[in-house]
Amino acid sequence: MNEKTHGGWLKVVGLGPGAEALITPEVSVALAEATDVVGYVPYVERVAPRPGLVRHGSDNREEIRRAEAALQLAAEGHRVVVVSSGDPGVFAMAAALFEALEAGEAEWRALDIQVLPGISAMLAASARLGAPLGHDFCCINLSDNLKPRALIERRLRLAAEADFAMAFYNPRSRARPEGFERALEVLREACGPERLIMFARAVATPEESLRVTTLGEATAEMADMRTLVLVGSSQTRRIPRSTVGVPWVYTPRSVS
Amino acid sequence: MNEKTHGGWLKVVGLGPGAEALITPEVSVALAEATDVVGYVPYVERVAPRPGLVRHGSDNREEIRRAEAALQLAAEGHRVVVVSSGDPGVFAMAAALFEALEAGEAEWRALDIQVLPGISAMLAASARLGAPLGHDFCCINLSDNLKPRALIERRLRLAAEADFAMAFYNPRSRARPEGFERALEVLREACGPERLIMFARAVATPEESLRVTTLGEATAEMADMRTLVLVGSSQTRRIPRSTVGVPWVYTPRSVS
Repeated sequence: MNEKTHGGWLKVVGLGPGAEALITPEVSVALAEATDVVGYVPYVERVAPRPGLVRHGSDNREEIRRAEAALQLAAEGHRVVVVSSGDPGVFAMAAALFEALEAGEAEWRALDIQVLPGISAMLAASARLGAPLGHDFCCINLSDNLKPRALIERRLRLAAEADFAMAFYNPRSRARPEGFERALEVLREACGPERLIMFARAVATPEESLRVTTLGEATAEMADMRTLVLVGSSQTRRIPRSTVGVPWVYTPRSVS
Repeated sequence: MNEKTHGGWLKVVGLGPGAEALITPEVSVALAEATDVVGYVPYVERVAPRPGLVRHGSDNREEIRRAEAALQLAAEGHRVVVVSSGDPGVFAMAAALFEALEAGEAEWRALDIQVLPGISAMLAASARLGAPLGHDFCCINLSDNLKPRALIERRLRLAAEADFAMAFYNPRSRARPEGFERALEVLREACGPERLIMFARAVATPEESLRVTTLGEATAEMADMRTLVLVGSSQTRRIPRSTVGVPWVYTPRSVS
């Protein structure tokens, strides 16, 4: 009997947006105890190699097969960490894991599974900019890989009508760059050209860049695949800061 | 000249929902370097006393005065940490800090201010339950201290129409318990009685409790001031788990 047969577990963890200092101690302990790390190649590469640890990097859009492989390893007694960037529950591996669990082997349901939260890109970007999500907000994945574009536009319009601040993941895909162009049009129409929009690229990495502008001035090229986009509510305000290039942006707590 | 005159700074930090293992190293370093910790009494008490550290606990609903005091201390050269539970940018001290900064002394704008993100209650609760926020979602503060109740109801209806999963902060205030009762009615009307609702109380503390039910079965008494409430989208699903009392709950990544 393989010595790994007993004591297997699976933890779906968030590595945060980039900096080591944003990885929770809970996640660091899980990584130190793991026999296997599973995930999208660039996230797996954020975990340093060490003896006794096997790193299984796979391609993007392989989420379900990756989740199945992770569940199978845990069922065989491995201590498996599935890594996501940011938080695993926000447009990341946790949902894929439960999709695979529900559709998969009955015995997988008896596994010791945990989800360990992480600092999401949305919270990290918001912190760098001030407090743009300081009042009610919504969070939308702009990718049309997994949902119809009409639904995205509908949600944008309803979010504007509700006067939510908004956080957008995956604004631009290489395959369909016109999607974000269209999202900006819908937002301009619904919120007006003066509404604040923020582009937070590669937050908490050495390549971090921030831009604060208005919907009227924004162009689709301001976002790429590593950009988190935030749009303010009607109440969101700017304060010039003397120290950095971009102003502080915050959404007040109260609405009169 | 006071030796604190130079080198003052202010960091608005998130302590996460409760467990030490969810505090980021970045926040731990800030707390270790601080001369002053400022915040709501129970959060300030989460920071261990030590020589050289002054803990300034204040009452709830004192956010602006607390923020002004923190800015003033930093202007005098103190190294000030303003603590929030969860993430400081989600219904917490970051927005209050920028409100005070905008309205306050001109010299405060030259201060070294940073916001350090934390694990929000929403992300921690979602992780414990599985991945209920695995698709588009919104986050609403149900307290009517700072906004009209009509606006809350309007946002609930629009969020239901957009078919967002939803996270609710401050579901019940002692002063107005009927508010959450009314929110449940609006949601039942908009989403139907079968829609999943989750109550995550005191997540990541020794008093943690989780409940998964439907809007039809939910009552206002299931939430108190320490409860984070999540409502699924129309796609949100349950998977029974053999190990714990509550099922896994997740929202699939795709919509057909």
